[in-house]
Order: sequence, then C-alpha cells, then structure tokens
Amino acid sequence: MTKIKIGQVGLGRLGKVHAENIVNHVKGAELFAVASVVEQELAYAKDELGVKNCYTSYSEMIENDELDAVVIVSPSGFHAVQISQALDKGLHVFSEKPIGLELDNIKQVVEKINSHSDKVFQLGFMRRFDDSYQFAKDVVQNGELGKITAMRCYGIDPSAGLDSFIQFAKNSASGGIFLDMSIHDIDLVRWFTGSEFKTVYSLGNNIAAPELTECEELETGACLAELDDGTIAYLLAGRNAQHGYHVETEIIGTEGMIRIGNAPEKNLVTLYDKNGVVRPTSGHFPERFKLAFINEINAFIESINNNVPSSITGIDGLKSTEVAIAMQESYEKKTIIKL
Amino acid sequence: MTKIKIGQVGLGRLGKVHAENIVNHVKGAELFAVASVVEQELAYAKDELGVKNCYTSYSEMIENDELDAVVIVSPSGFHAVQISQALDKGLHVFSEKPIGLELDNIKQVVEKINSHSDKVFQLGFMRRFDDSYQFAKDVVQNGELGKITAMRCYGIDPSAGLDSFIQFAKNSASGGIFLDMSIHDIDLVRWFTGSEFKTVYSLGNNIAAPELTECEELETGACLAELDDGTIAYLLAGRNAQHGYHVETEIIGTEGMIRIGNAPEKNLVTLYDKNGVVRPTSGHFPERFKLAFINEINAFIESINNNVPSSITGIDGLKSTEVAIAMQESYEKKTIIKL
Amino acid sequence: MTKIKIGQVGLGRLGKVHAENIVNHVKGAELFAVASVVEQELAYAKDELGVKNCYTSYSEMIENDELDAVVIVSPSGFHAVQISQALDKGLHVFSEKPIGLELDNIKQVVEKINSHSDKVFQLGFMRRFDDSYQFAKDVVQNGELGKITAMRCYGIDPSAGLDSFIQFAKNSASGGIFLDMSIHDIDLVRWFTGSEFKTVYSLGNNIAAPELTECEELETGACLAELDDGTIAYLLAGRNAQHGYHVETEIIGTEGMIRIGNAPEKNLVTLYDKNGVVRPTSGHFPERFKLAFINEINAFIESINNNVPSSITGIDGLKSTEVAIAMQESYEKKTIIKL
Amino acid sequence: MTKIKIGQVGLGRLGKVHAENIVNHVKGAELFAVASVVEQELAYAKDELGVKNCYTSYSEMIENDELDAVVIVSPSGFHAVQISQALDKGLHVFSEKPIGLELDNIKQVVEKINSHSDKVFQLGFMRRFDDSYQFAKDVVQNGELGKITAMRCYGIDPSAGLDSFIQFAKNSASGGIFLDMSIHDIDLVRWFTGSEFKTVYSLGNNIAAPELTECEELETGACLAELDDGTIAYLLAGRNAQHGYHVETEIIGTEGMIRIGNAPEKNLVTLYDKNGVVRPTSGHFPERFKLAFINEINAFIESINNNVPSSITGIDGLKSTEVAIAMQESYEKKTIIKL
Repeated sequence: MTKIKIGQVGLGRLGKVHAENIVNHVKGAELFAVASVVEQELAYAKDELGVKNCYTSYSEMIENDELDAVVIVSPSGFHAVQISQALDKGLHVFSEKPIGLELDNIKQVVEKINSHSDKVFQLGFMRRFDDSYQFAKDVVQNGELGKITAMRCYGIDPSAGLDSFIQFAKNSASGGIFLDMSIHDIDLVRWFTGSEFKTVYSLGNNIAAPELTECEELETGACLAELDDGTIAYLLAGRNAQHGYHVETEIIGTEGMIRIGNAPEKNLVTLYDKNGVVRPTSGHFPERFKLAFINEINAFIESINNNVPSSITGIDGLKSTEVAIAMQESYEKKTIIKL
Repeated sequence: MTKIKIGQVGLGRLGKVHAENIVNHVKGAELFAVASVVEQELAYAKDELGVKNCYTSYSEMIENDELDAVVIVSPSGFHAVQISQALDKGLHVFSEKPIGLELDNIKQVVEKINSHSDKVFQLGFMRRFDDSYQFAKDVVQNGELGKITAMRCYGIDPSAGLDSFIQFAKNSASGGIFLDMSIHDIDLVRWFTGSEFKTVYSLGNNIAAPELTECEELETGACLAELDDGTIAYLLAGRNAQHGYHVETEIIGTEGMIRIGNAPEKNLVTLYDKNGVVRPTSGHFPERFKLAFINEINAFIESINNNVPSSITGIDGLKSTEVAIAMQESYEKKTIIKL
Repeated sequence: MTKIKIGQVGLGRLGKVHAENIVNHVKGAELFAVASVVEQELAYAKDELGVKNCYTSYSEMIENDELDAVVIVSPSGFHAVQISQALDKGLHVFSEKPIGLELDNIKQVVEKINSHSDKVFQLGFMRRFDDSYQFAKDVVQNGELGKITAMRCYGIDPSAGLDSFIQFAKNSASGGIFLDMSIHDIDLVRWFTGSEFKTVYSLGNNIAAPELTECEELETGACLAELDDGTIAYLLAGRNAQHGYHVETEIIGTEGMIRIGNAPEKNLVTLYDKNGVVRPTSGHFPERFKLAFINEINAFIESINNNVPSSITGIDGLKSTEVAIAMQESYEKKTIIKL
Repeated sequence: MTKIKIGQVGLGRLGKVHAENIVNHVKGAELFAVASVVEQELAYAKDELGVKNCYTSYSEMIENDELDAVVIVSPSGFHAVQISQALDKGLHVFSEKPIGLELDNIKQVVEKINSHSDKVFQLGFMRRFDDSYQFAKDVVQNGELGKITAMRCYGIDPSAGLDSFIQFAKNSASGGIFLDMSIHDIDLVRWFTGSEFKTVYSLGNNIAAPELTECEELETGACLAELDDGTIAYLLAGRNAQHGYHVETEIIGTEGMIRIGNAPEKNLVTLYDKNGVVRPTSGHFPERFKLAFINEINAFIESINNNVPSSITGIDGLKSTEVAIAMQESYEKKTIIKL
C-alpha cells in the first residue's frame, strides 16, 4: 500500500487544518512537500509536521517528480493558475474554492480540468462530507422527504470575527458576501436538489456593521431563488452570529422536513443554569467542520486510488460561482436576475 | 363589576373556540347573544353554552339594546358590513381578519373605525397574544437583540388539512395563500419591527399538491421583502407540514437571535423510542393558539373597560392586507412590487 | 345549568391561584364564600373577586346552607379537621395535600371520606391534570412504552426561594423534604405504575445550604425504591435549581422511554445569544402548573355534577404520605425501610 | 520524531476499533505488531492494516525487542497476566478494563503497575476523553457548577443487542451488570467528584428480559450511592434502550446542573415528520465514542513521549471494580454495603 505523495501550497489558518489532517488522519497519503512564501509556515511544516520537502515556490514544488497530487490552499487569486499548472504536470488536484476570481478564467480552468479527466480534481466544498450533511443526503435520496419543495440555507459567521473582517474589508475585496460565503450554500442547494438555479433576487443590509457600507461589503445578504425544477430556495449569509458559527440547512419536502444545524450544538452537553437551559455552540468553521475536512481529503485520496472522478467537479465550482455572481448583481442592481 | 355583554356572529370552527372562551375564560364578559344562519349552531349555543338570545340575523341581534360589543367570526365576505353596522350602532367590535375582501372596501371600513375612536375595535391577530410571542416582544423591546436585521416567518398548515383545502379550492377562492395565510406573518413583522414593508418579491409552487395549480392556488408561497428600515424579511406559507401545525418566527438582531416555535412542541414531553428522540407536536391552530385566543378576548374586554384603544387597529388590518395583496401580485407578475 | 357553590378556606399564594381560577376559568362553579383569618385576604376576595360571603371562621362558613362544596387551601395542620367537618355537613371536598400531619389522623380522615362515598373528595395532586402528564399517561396506557421497568422523578424548587425556605425552616417544621416535596412524585409513581411502594432507601445532603442541617431539614433528598411489581423508582427532591422550577418525570418501559419536563421550558422560545442556544424556563409552580390547577378544579366540579368519585382519593393521600414518612425514616435511620 | 511501536493483542469488535485508530489517527504511533489466536483477525491486520508482525501468541509478541508499548484488547480473563508480563518486559501498557476478574488479582496487578512507575499504564475508560465529557470536566473544574451535590449516570445498551446478550448470558458470566456496565459510570463519578464511594444500595429487575433471571443476570440494575464528600450518586445500567445507545451523565451543583447526553443525538440533524420533531440517535458505543477511542490512544502516546503518568491509573481500575462488586453484592444480599 503506497501512500499518495501530496504537495500542499498555503499554510494559513485553513492550510494548517489540511496539513495536520493529511499528516494525522489520512492514512493513504503523505504530506510529501509544502510550498509557502511565509518562512514561519515552512518552519512549522518542517518542525511540527516533519515535512521533508519545503519550497518557497509552488512552481518549483510541482517540479518534484515524486509528487502525485497537490492540495491548493493559497489565496484565491492563485487558484486558477496553480490548478492549471498542476494538471499540466500530470498531478491530481484538490483545491479550495473558488476555482478563480473571474468567470472567464474559471471557465478556462474548468475546460482544462475536463480535458484532464484521467486526473482527479476535487473542489473544497467540505460540507458535503460532514456527517450530518451525509445523513441528510441519505434521507433525501431514500425518498423519506418525498420531493423537495423548498430549501433554506444560513451561513452566519461568528460575531467574534466581525471586527477583523471589517479591517480586512477596508483594504481588500472579498468578492462580496455571496461569493465569499453563500457559495457553500449554493453548492448545497445544487447537491440536494440536483437542479440548477433559474432566478435569483437578493437584498442586503449593514445594520449590524455600518462601516461595511463604505467598503461596499455586506454584513447580511439574503437571496430568494427559484430552481429549474420549481424548488424555492432562500439563502442568508451574515457575519454577526453572537452565538457562534451558524451554518444551517433546511429541506422541506412533500413528506417531511429536515434541518441540519438547527442549532450549532458544540457537543452533547446541556447546561441548566441561571440563563435557562443552554446548549453550548460551535465557535468557528474549523470546529464545526473538523471531521468534514478530514473526510474530504480521504475521499480525494480514495478517488485517486480507485481511479474514479471526485463527486465535486470543476462544473460544481463554475455553476456555484455563476450563481453567486448573479446574487451579487441582483443586490447591486435591485432586480431579479435570470441565469 | 358588570360584565360586558357580547353578541357573537358565526359559530363555525373558530366561532366555537371564541364562544366557549367567552363563556368559560373571560371573566369580564358574558356571551349575551349569538347570531347564525345555521340552526345547529344556534342549538349548540343555547344548549351547550346557555346563551339566552339566539338570532338568525346579525342585523336583528345588534338591535338588542343591551349589547355592548360584537365578536365577528362570520365568513370573510361579511366582515366589512358587519363591522360598519356595529360601529353605527355604537358597539365595540372584535373582528376576525380580514376587515374586508377588497382594498377600497377595507379603507372605507378603516375610516369608519377611525371616526368611531370612542369605540374599541380589535382585529383578530391572536398570535400577538400568545405567551411565546409576548415573551419575544419583551425581549425585543428590552433591546436584548439589539437592532433587528432580518426576520423569518413560517406558517405551514398541517398535511392533515391539505385534501380538504383542495376540495375547498375547487369551489371557492381563498384570496390566495398570501392573503389567506401570510397575513398573520405580515402583521408579526410589522409588530416586531415597527416598520413598514417597502418591497416584496414572491415565488410559489405546487410540487406537493399539483391539483392546486388549476384552482389558481398555491401549496407553498414564499416572499423576500425589504422594510423601510432596511430589515430583510422572509415569509413562507405552506399547506403541507407532515409534523403538524408549524408557525415559526425568527428575529435576527445585532445582539442575538430568537426563534418562536423552532419546533411546534405540543407539551413538555420527550419520547425516546424506535424513531429516535421525539418531541410531539401541535396538530392545528386551535391547539397551538389555545391561550392566545383567550388572551385576545380578555384584552379586548380590558380595552373596553379601561376606555383605551386596542393595540391592534384597523390600520394594522389595512396595511397587512396591502402587503399580502402585493405579495400575491408579485407572484403573479413575477416581479418586484414596491409598496 | 346551576353552578356549584364553593366555599374556599385559605387565600395565601396557592389559595389565590385557586380562587382566581374558580372565578375566571371554572364555568360550572361559583366562588360563593371564602374564609380566612387574614383581613387583607378577605378584602381581596370581596374587592377583586367579587365574593359576596366572607367569613373569618371556617366553621361559620360551612354553616351556610347554600354551599355545595369546599376547597381547602389552609395551612396543612387544619386539613384533617376541616375535611371532616365539611363531610359531616354533607359537602363535597377538594383539599390540598396533605390530608393530615400524622398517619393515625390521616387514617381516621380517610375512613370518614370512605364512609361519605356519596360526596366527592379530591386531593390536590394537580400534576395529574397537567397536559404533559395527561399525554404521558395516555402513552403509558396505550402500551406504547410496554411494561414499566423504572421511573425517575425530580422535584427541584428554584434557588430563588431557598433563602426564604431557610428562614421558614428556622421557625417551623416542613415535615421533611420527602413529605413536603416528594409526595407529589410518590403519587405520580403510584399513578403511572398502578403499583405500591415495597421498599425505600433515602439519602440527603445540605451541601447547597449548610444552614439547613441545624434545622433538621434537607436541601437535597434522594430515594431509591422498589415497587411491588418490581419497578425501580428513583426520586430526587431539592430546593436549589438555578434554572427555575424543575419538575421532571421519566418512565422507562420495555418499548421506550418518556420524559416529562426534561427541561422546564417556559414557552416555545429559543434564544441564540452569547450564552449559546437557550431555552427560557418556568420560574415557579404557579407558572409551570397554571393549567393543571384550573383543570383539577374543573374535574372536581365534573365529578360532583356526574355524581362519580374523583380519580384522586383519600387512599392516594394516605399511601403517598406513608411512603414519604418511610423515606424520611430511611434517611434518619440510614436503613432500608419496608412498607 | 520516531513513532511509538505498539503491539496489540485482541482484534475483536473493539480491538478493530483500536487497531484502525492506531493506523489512521494516531500520528505518534505505529501498529508494529498484533497477536491473536484467530487466524482471520491476523489476516485482517496484515491485509487491511498492513501490520508486518503478526503473532498467534501474546508472549511471543512481547519478546520482540522493538516494541515500546502494548494495547490489550483481549478477553477480560487475560488482562491481569498480560499487563504483568508487559510491564516485566519494560513495556508501556494500555489495557481495556477490567484489570482483572478478581479483586485480589487486581490488587496484585496494581502493585506491579505502581512498582513500574517509569512505565505508562493507562486503563481504557475512554469516556473521559470524549469531547462532551472533557467540556463538562472543564465546566466543573472552573467552578461553574459550584460544589457537586448529586450525580446521575445512565448506561443503557441498545435493544438491538439484547437478544445476543441473552444468548451470551446462557453460556458465560458477564460478571454482573454492575461490573460489566456500571464500571464506566463509577469511574465518571470518581473523576468528576474527586471523591470515593462510601455506601451503595442496589436494585435490579428483568421485566424487559425475564430469560435473564435464570442466567443470574440483570437487564436493569440501579444503585443509590453516597460518596465520602456527601455527594449522592444514582447509577442506572440497562440493556434495552429502544432509541439506541444511551449514555447520560448528570451533575447537579450548587450553581447549576449539567447533562452530557441528555439525548444521544447522532448528529446535528432534526427531522420534522409524521412522528413529530425527531433527533436521530447513536446506535452503539463505537459510534458514540468514536473520537474518544482515538483521543485516549493519543493521550497514551503523549504520556509516553512526555514521560508522565497517564491520568487513568491502576488505582482507578481497582477502585471502580471494588465499587462495582459492592453494587452487585448489595443487589444480591438486598442490603446497603459500606466500602
């Protein structure tokens, strides 16, 4: 049983999550190399994770002929070119979303991905690999909910991160709340319904963070959408959940309804105290999706070993991005956008 | 302590709820008279509730000079004229919604209500009198949630009633799902935010009940709205909740979030059985809002005794209806409607 | 439909609950007379409730020949004699627990009750009339849980009342925590199982209120009991629930398990705030059992009108007291007590 | 960073859990060798897990000088001798509970463990390493609950396994329900309170499985205990939870109450269907304690690497066993046992 040799680029917050998972929880893989322009990150990889091959250049890293695959966790602006380069080198690619920053660019990358169908490409929509989402998917596929009539997706970041986002927004562009956050929910809607978005209509406000208005960002964004099959979808993204990290998905079907993350319970603990009866909550995405991040890399390795395509393709990335851009446009133009 | 003498018109399902509440749970009032064109209903009032004055005609009933107030629970088409007649007779009026079927008509009635400001007029938005909604209102007014940024209102009738609604819809017009059902939610949004609807955009489908399409009715209707103060509101109405009667309201504020009826728990029971861990649910509106129906009549009587206006005015009825009509229009025209 | 004329003795905290319920929520009864030695209480009855016949003496009140029934909410020490006197006068009797303070005395009263079988006697075990308990009783009787194997009953008073209990305990005897509090749970165990207590073994501590030790009272008392049919029962009583009024009953059966009051949810509200996901709780027994207090008096009136015995007999009071006394004795003697 | 070389004995149900965890999720360790008398188990280790050194004899395995530590997951009867042998060979030892079958034997082993204090010995009380229990431990240690006054521990196996237990019980002795199941709860009580059991009093019944009576086994066992510090503890063990695997621990403190596993929620999913509002549940211990099993081995490795004792010592095993034996004796003799 030889291990898949992975070269990872990017060792920021999420990068460290992936790197540690590959080292500790992905039996079929080896973190063979890393690339980063941040010296401390390379030191961390070498000292803490025992990575032997550390590069300051991605291009250099993928020249290493022993590599089987890359895991791309670099800033979004680099994804497109790094995906392309890796595919050209004959490597399997796991990339965080988005595939690219602009639609044309993404389309080119997706074409390249499609033309390298012998290589596994997987996009980092980790929620699909979360136990609760997997359970819900089974419920839907078993027909227990009947036909889907409506969905609701909430993605609300914890208030704890709001100030730092405001600082970030003053200097950088996130691409807008729909591209930055709703894209995960868009993917979930497509995944659960198997249908595509037909129209979107968005609203937004900054009541909780007026400073964001001058940065042309939103604290809260909401969208009412219709899918090709008639399903109604409501998506809400926010940056100010006082109770923690609130990712919730609801599927209403003709035979029943399901909610994933009705409350983002941290564990099985219930407190009975002066506040009432309290369920502690997950504080951030690495906590909430801890196992999902592990599962998605294991699935990637399994696809490589079994020589089958990943369940999350370049098309998924392209379609979700198209919808997110339409949602942003709808907000800006105050109009319904057809896809 | 003399009791307020009430004459009630209409003794259908909801009528009986009111009549029995007045007899059993409203100490300051007496069910002095009833009017109905249904003989059995009058017999019921006489025999079961001990009502002494039974009329087959509303006009006749309100000629009885001993009456202080009327409670109108007749079919919607009669509300406007019965409200007007009662006010002209110098009676206090409690009326079920809607005030009337057409906007012009409603406006006239509201004018009449306003010109009889010495008489109490109260509209039957009973949810405002529910313990859970009262508690939430306090939470909002105490500022515990900060400023409101978004709301979500679900009103989903139990599947148990879907077939009979389909039969009804084949012969009658409900006015559309937004007027028929969302109007309660519209009122709640206005009540909690103290702001008015600015724009609405609606979708709908009949995936769960294709038969409704030919009746020009909807099984599910959804609306994304913006209020004058920037609050985002999402309203969903349905007729097919397998688990019972699902009325849920969510308020997201800058300092926290509240949900009323996250699950429509029937009582304090939890079952641990082959299905998992189960909370039994409320099956229909008389069960869910049992106490609210009592509280609203008590509040009506209190307003009369204290000679103060009701908290739910004719304007509330007019505004909610205007919004509901706009929601229906948005659905039909597939466009955003400004109010 | 003539109303049952009730004379009530005692208008303290619980007395007011009953009196207001009789006036406002018990259609078949009239609060015809009250007796109290407290002037303010009589003034309250006269002015607020419109009671016409106010007595400073119970004996005098029951001389009033118009009376049909008494409701006894006086201090426990008076129950035995007041029950007896009323029965001798040919009155129906609703009495708060306990029937008396000493077993011999209780037995005499129960004999008297039994010898007046034409009169309705009902003891104030109001929990049996709570919606949740009624629902659970149906579940058990329908066989949904199979045979009962174990029960658990918690009765924990809110911390808010602990200080005043300590003050009370310095001057008075409550009879011990088992007689004072567990007696309701003993009744529930007997009611749900239909079986009698065979053995009891109790423990107690005052970790939360060391001052109680010198008063020979307990803050927490616990008992493991076996019933005649083999069911295991665990009862815990306490005086220090920080989250409110915690009354919880669990029934484990061969086919499933049920909990009533797993959390003492105040209403259908859920808060999502800095504390996590929070369910507000009931603060005290009048809140938690508001409807049960109404239901029990209605049931009493119904028994009178239908000329059938109450479902809660003198025997229920006697048996529960015997068990509670045994529980106290077990604690004091540190031994297993057989009944 | 050299990996700790582990030799594991036993590859049954739980053995496989440990072996796969060591291979996949314990970065600091290597599953260097396995021993089993079952040929298929060795084949599984070799083929599925890539273990190079496979032995049919434990004694032979521990002769391998490259080994650093053993993980003992053999039948309970072998634990004592295998622990001793390993310690004599200078190996670190992780062993599943119990340390041995008889008290004298356990005491000898504990003496041996204590005399090898340079070697890490850890007992498999995995619950201590579960996220929810860790969270609760922090809550207790931070003083958020004040002083502990009472605990309640439920360990109820799923009904799905009852028949196979009955078959097992016909041929083998489990040691009784308290040794077999309550021992985990005894450990939790000792861990949370830091206090020892003073008295125990047990009951039991076979209402759910009468066949067990002739096997001298119990389906349900319950115990009321007092600790040295006055804490009251109630422990219930059962073999017939229809809803899954119910492990629940409650700690009542002077400042609040906590429950771990109030409901054994499987994930973050809530279903709203014909049954009501349903939380799916964990079906068995490998599911419920999946991460705890991983965490405990990681902690073991960390103790070895840091050259510090494990937090779960031989004394913990001895004390828990003593209490479990006393609980069984109490049940058999129908008397209170002092420890």
